[in-house]
Amino acid sequence: MNYVEVCVSPALLDSYHANDKLVVVIDVFRASTAICTAIGYGIQSIIPVATVDEALTWQDKGYITAAERNGEVVAGFEFGNSPFAFQKPELIGKKIVLTTSNCTKAINKAEKAGVNNIIISSFVNLSATVDRIIELNTNVLLLCAGWKNHVSLEDTLCAGAIVNRLLDRGLKTRCDAAIMASRNYLQAESDIAGYLVGSSHQLRLGHLGLDEDLEYCLQIDQWTKVPQMVGNELVAGSVHSLIASA
Amino acid sequence: MNYVEVCVSPALLDSYHANDKLVVVIDVFRASTAICTAIGYGIQSIIPVATVDEALTWQDKGYITAAERNGEVVAGFEFGNSPFAFQKPELIGKKIVLTTSNCTKAINKAEKAGVNNIIISSFVNLSATVDRIIELNTNVLLLCAGWKNHVSLEDTLCAGAIVNRLLDRGLKTRCDAAIMASRNYLQAESDIAGYLVGSSHQLRLGHLGLDEDLEYCLQIDQWTKVPQMVGNELVAGSVHSLIASA
Repeated sequence: MNYVEVCVSPALLDSYHANDKLVVVIDVFRASTAICTAIGYGIQSIIPVATVDEALTWQDKGYITAAERNGEVVAGFEFGNSPFAFQKPELIGKKIVLTTSNCTKAINKAEKAGVNNIIISSFVNLSATVDRIIELNTNVLLLCAGWKNHVSLEDTLCAGAIVNRLLDRGLKTRCDAAIMASRNYLQAESDIAGYLVGSSHQLRLGHLGLDEDLEYCLQIDQWTKVPQMVGNELVAGSVHSLIASA
Repeated sequence: MNYVEVCVSPALLDSYHANDKLVVVIDVFRASTAICTAIGYGIQSIIPVATVDEALTWQDKGYITAAERNGEVVAGFEFGNSPFAFQKPELIGKKIVLTTSNCTKAINKAEKAGVNNIIISSFVNLSATVDRIIELNTNVLLLCAGWKNHVSLEDTLCAGAIVNRLLDRGLKTRCDAAIMASRNYLQAESDIAGYLVGSSHQLRLGHLGLDEDLEYCLQIDQWTKVPQMVGNELVAGSVHSLIASA
């Protein structure tokens, strides 16, 4: 019997004994959506780093670098975490170094917790994520990146969507956060954008003219690849490489 | 304009700038229910302490002491956190020292964060809690005690019930956890016990024969007093004493 849990903030990760589980990092607005888009589109890999300074070090070595803080592109970087920025033909086959406010920090936190199997999910690769979890046949922890350790409704909803599908496919849960997320998603699924009206992303991102980005981020199943950490890179995943890296 | 926020785990408290807010500690199963019951019933005060060792120190001084860990009374203590244990005529007017798995630790954490105004809530004093918050006319953070830093569905539901009533009475929220809790409560309110079927409290407490306790803990508005911290004691609150302690 495999179980699914939801961790609603990276600040709670230490309570979850995550190191022997598959960890699925979710940051719907916008980093995990951008990563799933990039890998789906054909970018060779995303190298997630926790700090702007680390990204600058890679930039000095000649890497393409992307950095976002507080929803905006950091000065001196080619782009931030808009999923549209990663869909450019000249980027196909390239490696991109990325640092973001929350998602890359969540990935970094999971690595430091000793997690060997990390994959990236968002609404845009929802079905592929669920299929991958089922293939891997393991206990899974859905890690919501949130916003500066606060709960983000959109990340929790995406986790809830995954929970519901996993429960339908035979996993169990004993996790109250998973139950909450699952039931919130049942309320939201017919109109996710409507359900998010009034939530904190509007305060954070509403003034940045990102409506097109946000609409894109809620589109289910745009991509069929599931990015996974192999070494220090997120690459198009396969079941074989995930098990091998464990 | 006053705002309401929900912190779903004490481990997230540091992210909330709680020190200038009214903090409402919620631990439905069973400590905050027991404290609200005790103060409602006429016990003079509850002295919450974080550790069993601290409680033993008070015991040595002759105080009545209660201690719960993992749902059970700690050996050597008169009682734990069953709300029925606090409804005995011989306890009226007395002070009781209490340590519990989560609630007293959450109180302690709020104190260490510099919070001056702490009150205790549960379903059993729901309306009184809401009235008190409105009287105090301040920003409020609902702090769910959870279980060992994990989210607890029953605490989040109680927070959601308070959020809904506060929104009806003019407060606003910009907190996604408050939105989630509020909407979960809307799903749950017609059958709270039914909504909790399958949640983690059954795993933790189901084998301890606490059905009567748990049923009691979900009864709305059994008591009209709101315990508040004054010095190191939880006493029957008044608006005057709360403002004075700020």
